Amino acid sequence: MTSNQNGRFLRTLAGDISQPPPVWLMRQAGRYLPEYRALRAEKGSFLALCYDPEAACEITLQPVRRFGMDAAILFSDILIVPHAMGQDLTFTEGEGPRLTPILETTDLDTLTAQPQHLDSIYATVRKTRAALAPDKALIGFAGSPWTVATYMVAGMGSKDQAAARLMAYRDASRFQALINAIVDTTVTYLSGQITAGADAVQLFDSWSGSLAPAEFERWVIAPTASIVQRLMALHPQTPIIGFPKGAGEKLVAYAAETGIDALGLDEAIDLQWATRTLPPTLPLQGNLDPMALLAGGTALRQAIARITHAFEGRPHIFNLGHGIDRHTPIAHVEELLAQIRGTAR
Amino acid sequence: MTSNQNGRFLRTLAGDISQPPPVWLMRQAGRYLPEYRALRAEKGSFLALCYDPEAACEITLQPVRRFGMDAAILFSDILIVPHAMGQDLTFTEGEGPRLTPILETTDLDTLTAQPQHLDSIYATVRKTRAALAPDKALIGFAGSPWTVATYMVAGMGSKDQAAARLMAYRDASRFQALINAIVDTTVTYLSGQITAGADAVQLFDSWSGSLAPAEFERWVIAPTASIVQRLMALHPQTPIIGFPKGAGEKLVAYAAETGIDALGLDEAIDLQWATRTLPPTLPLQGNLDPMALLAGGTALRQAIARITHAFEGRPHIFNLGHGIDRHTPIAHVEELLAQIRGTAR
Repeated sequence: MTSNQNGRFLRTLAGDISQPPPVWLMRQAGRYLPEYRALRAEKGSFLALCYDPEAACEITLQPVRRFGMDAAILFSDILIVPHAMGQDLTFTEGEGPRLTPILETTDLDTLTAQPQHLDSIYATVRKTRAALAPDKALIGFAGSPWTVATYMVAGMGSKDQAAARLMAYRDASRFQALINAIVDTTVTYLSGQITAGADAVQLFDSWSGSLAPAEFERWVIAPTASIVQRLMALHPQTPIIGFPKGAGEKLVAYAAETGIDALGLDEAIDLQWATRTLPPTLPLQGNLDPMALLAGGTALRQAIARITHAFEGRPHIFNLGHGIDRHTPIAHVEELLAQIRGTAR
Repeated sequence: MTSNQNGRFLRTLAGDISQPPPVWLMRQAGRYLPEYRALRAEKGSFLALCYDPEAACEITLQPVRRFGMDAAILFSDILIVPHAMGQDLTFTEGEGPRLTPILETTDLDTLTAQPQHLDSIYATVRKTRAALAPDKALIGFAGSPWTVATYMVAGMGSKDQAAARLMAYRDASRFQALINAIVDTTVTYLSGQITAGADAVQLFDSWSGSLAPAEFERWVIAPTASIVQRLMALHPQTPIIGFPKGAGEKLVAYAAETGIDALGLDEAIDLQWATRTLPPTLPLQGNLDPMALLAGGTALRQAIARITHAFEGRPHIFNLGHGIDRHTPIAHVEELLAQIRGTAR
């Protein structure tokens, strides 16, 4: 039983058609907000913020407080899972994350689980759910196993995710063991977030677009299906949103085979194709181009109108197709919300 | 009239079904070849090689000589077009290309065309066509206007092509003028390559995947259709291959609306979807994962078998889905060719 089953976001995930649609924005808790930048300057590193329940709760609430978003998304990072699995993790300003790479010779069994990292996140979830209004949903999340594995293998973000793709071809059974380990920790982690109060969870597969189709089946669809099956057994009432960025035409198989309750669409997806091809009762989330939101003006108004028009008559959660750009003016977010909610001038 | 109308590559582009299919590899003339590395070490910079017809001809011929590829692709770069339009261009080892960025305040009319750069390339084409066996095709190429514009605006390769996407939203008429200028130079350039002896041309749209659907229509499909229409009026016998990387489900519109004669598929495209959805007479080119070729072994054999099987019964040119990785062992390319040509052990 969720704490806000009457909220518009969860009703849409359950299949209702809301007009106007519920809205939240990927990375809505982040650097484009002055109140985030102020807290970050005061508290220090990104990872320290993720593990500080008070700060992370405050950051999670900031965009809901400022804009009245229909859902809050936990302020955290997809690399919490490898960190909890025992991999070293640091974030350096301007360089992004660094981990000790998993090499073809690394023994996964030598990693020592650090479950206290997950406990910090659960504390954030509890605090945030308690502070949120009942009609606002709290979204927990994790990276999908493929995307998390690309960072674990390369030790950082990487062009074309070449190292992980190569390991998957060269030693599929070894790569399968890595994926299985990530699946296990991810199920524990998302289940813990739900127990702590998350009303829905989203799986971010930011790099699913770099995989050949047979690899996509094996490393995206199969592990996602496994996570969904295990989570649904534990928490049958909690909806799971899948977001395989760059999956293009493979979204059809992803929607049919993973068991996810709703599907996030990136900004490149053709909406006519999506609404014609994907199951009509499947709630879809997306997919404004973050560059249109950054640009503002006529281009933004037209892009919003195309999206709201395309999704008319089906369950739709308005969102970006990718995280909000850090340079996005606050006024553009306000204009977006005014237009969607019908209060635009 | 082409010099090798009986070659397997051109017959396939004309709609014939060849068994085994013709083969070439994107970036087959390049750094994975020791004979290329030797010439590069002797002659100096990448751009100097592009503008040296004798060296560029030799590099273009190297993979045909070593592997008997069915087609040679001109050794050159997509940034020759902005260079010929008057933009500064340098390549720094390990850093990639640098151009003086086109800003929102740059007056395009201040660029001074440098047509001598195109003339060097035509000289390479003439030399290469004269040196190639009649049954081997010579492929000319250019970048597609959108992809070329992303480099012209950012002044370099860029994450998510954000600068060009933003300019296109903020000032669409200005961006349209830039695209139109690139279209004009590209038509001149490809027409010159064909006159000099290119048997077919390919348009590389490496970054088409980053565009929202309405932007894809405007900045990928429309300029490509314009180039195809103008080239076909000038050279009705010369086939044009379009390669919009990352286009996913939007390949259907691209194939239907641009007028291209054949379609390149990147490695992420689902072959069952492609063969079921794209016109059955449209020749398709692709789409082995370069990481499978780098990995070799069982994974490579299985990936090749899936592709040859999926394209049975329709015109197909075997290729990678993206450029060959520089670390690819020569032996893996030999195994690929042996398997496709049915001489694998």
